[in-house]
Amino acid sequence: MDKYWFTYDDIHRTVRDLAGRVKASGFETDAIVAIGSGGYIPARILRTYINKPIWAVGISYYDENDNPTDNPRKMQWIDEVERKLAGKRILLVDEVDDSRTTLEYCIRELLSHKPAEVAVAVLHNKRKEKRGTLPPEVTRYFTGLDIEDRWVKYPWDAVDIDEQDANAAAARTRA
Amino acid sequence: MDKYWFTYDDIHRTVRDLAGRVKASGFETDAIVAIGSGGYIPARILRTYINKPIWAVGISYYDENDNPTDNPRKMQWIDEVERKLAGKRILLVDEVDDSRTTLEYCIRELLSHKPAEVAVAVLHNKRKEKRGTLPPEVTRYFTGLDIEDRWVKYPWDAVDIDEQDANAAAARTRA
Repeated sequence: MDKYWFTYDDIHRTVRDLAGRVKASGFETDAIVAIGSGGYIPARILRTYINKPIWAVGISYYDENDNPTDNPRKMQWIDEVERKLAGKRILLVDEVDDSRTTLEYCIRELLSHKPAEVAVAVLHNKRKEKRGTLPPEVTRYFTGLDIEDRWVKYPWDAVDIDEQDANAAAARTRA
Repeated sequence: MDKYWFTYDDIHRTVRDLAGRVKASGFETDAIVAIGSGGYIPARILRTYINKPIWAVGISYYDENDNPTDNPRKMQWIDEVERKLAGKRILLVDEVDDSRTTLEYCIRELLSHKPAEVAVAVLHNKRKEKRGTLPPEVTRYFTGLDIEDRWVKYPWDAVDIDEQDANAAAARTRA
């Protein structure tokens, strides 16, 4: 069992749990910032439980010439959103905290626009040594589920959703 | 049976069909533009079949003072994206074509930045008289499913996903 297979309903329930943790902490979200494109689906589901506007930001791991790079690059950042960040309590959402480099990059960008607070909410956190670090300004970090360092198969990446469901069911039986 | 209830897997299969129609038409997508927040989930699934970057735009039906308004307003539009639109073939994605006002608004905004082509792809089109119109520049319009003018219950809006699935199953039995 070397991969995690999740159904959409698994994801939905994990977001519900994640939202519950955010609310139980007392954090008052002003806006959800979704890291694209992995954060779009978790962020949209999260809005059902924490009804705040979603601002989307994009990160690219390709340089201007479409060559892969190790360093994330701003792809879609919004002047209007950047102006709005000041003084706001931001909940930054992504699907997975893997090496933590994307999160660190996004948090540092957000912090440069003087929000009141940046909290992080990820669907899945991989228990592993991280290359990125959470800046000390981030005092709240929420996860839906903490998992081992294995490949995660998300339902939205499935070409055949029935196959995804079958694999998720089989993985559940083995577990 | 006055409402449509969809499961996530229903949505996923509808996006697969929608992507198939886009590809069968010969339309060569350069970038997917997702209308937030309803378009985020369909757009992200679509990317599994049409692997192009997603640019997110936001529309608000609230004015600057948080009062409801009938006229959509730009909430999140990206200078960087706007600069990138020129000469590109854009696939504009939303979850539902209801009154068509949001679509018309977004298409007109996109057209003002001189894309090569704007095609529209919606998960669901409601068969009804539309208040908005598709500008003549839009020569391609794709739908995943054409439906009657009833309330649509999307899975991502469900507080209880098991209840959503049960309602979807019951609606299927009645149909």
